[in-house]
Amino acid sequence: MQEGRIERAFTYFESGAVLLVTTNDGTKDNVMTISWQMVLDFVPHIAISTGDWNESFQTILDKKECCLCVPTFDMLEKVVQIGTSHGSECDKFERFSLPKAKAKINKAPLIPDCLAVLECKLEDYVEEHGILIFKGLLLWENTKKKEQRVIHANGDGTFFADGEFRNMRKEMGQWVPKGSERL
Amino acid sequence: MQEGRIERAFTYFESGAVLLVTTNDGTKDNVMTISWQMVLDFVPHIAISTGDWNESFQTILDKKECCLCVPTFDMLEKVVQIGTSHGSECDKFERFSLPKAKAKINKAPLIPDCLAVLECKLEDYVEEHGILIFKGLLLWENTKKKEQRVIHANGDGTFFADGEFRNMRKEMGQWVPKGSERL
Repeated sequence: MQEGRIERAFTYFESGAVLLVTTNDGTKDNVMTISWQMVLDFVPHIAISTGDWNESFQTILDKKECCLCVPTFDMLEKVVQIGTSHGSECDKFERFSLPKAKAKINKAPLIPDCLAVLECKLEDYVEEHGILIFKGLLLWENTKKKEQRVIHANGDGTFFADGEFRNMRKEMGQWVPKGSERL
Repeated sequence: MQEGRIERAFTYFESGAVLLVTTNDGTKDNVMTISWQMVLDFVPHIAISTGDWNESFQTILDKKECCLCVPTFDMLEKVVQIGTSHGSECDKFERFSLPKAKAKINKAPLIPDCLAVLECKLEDYVEEHGILIFKGLLLWENTKKKEQRVIHANGDGTFFADGEFRNMRKEMGQWVPKGSERL
């Protein structure tokens, strides 16, 4: 992975990609699967919706950081396995043969097989609605990976990959955020 | 469109589909395009991120309701046109030849060409982060529409349709929410 322009970081999230969220509690790395995520602005701030049924949740509140990793469609089996197991029972990176690497700012690891990773700090927790608000600090990209399609969860146990592509930049004109072009 | 089970309403949103959000300010219907949206639970509560640059925003705060409509990929041109024009300049339904219909609970109209429509009431506004929290009240489905692919915005003026499909219900087991099966 190489560092990328933060101006286009939000474009890895806006389509509603399923995410792998990594944490480090001071002793151990952990990773969870999240599909409830939303872009808030172009900084970017990213919101995720989760709660105390996820072990990583308390670690995020304690350490105030995580890495938001965007897996590709060829990683779907691992993404489901990660989402249906608990970090208290095993080391998920080991059990699911998921390579990891040191981040630059955060203690939480990168997942270098992913299409992109955003090192984030926690800015707020909207407790009433279970929403964590992150600010993206540093973008990592994997532009050379052959599989570039991300995963979309339907929530009923089925998934889609990115399919037909359309470039509407001409039609959108001034509405395309400057520096965002990626695809 | 026909009424559908509210238990599967969240599945129309979880993949990160671009939405058309309809409102009625007491005098006039309006519609805006939103891709910053997130599921919060299976009720469902749905969050969207917006602000006062959208005319519909003030109407939602005033009337405390809207319809969240899920357009299909064949509607992409209209979705972009709606997203790049202002309701103050024109009647968007008329200008873009967008059929509408009466909702059952809400004053805001349905868009019957969409794959699904969720009649929602506003439950909260998290001002600090520009997040509107909706509770879904009634689901409309368009199960007979030939085009079932939804739209995913990358945020840089490019879009994807749903592509390759994978059913992982067996692998997910108990983690598939009861009554959610749609695809």
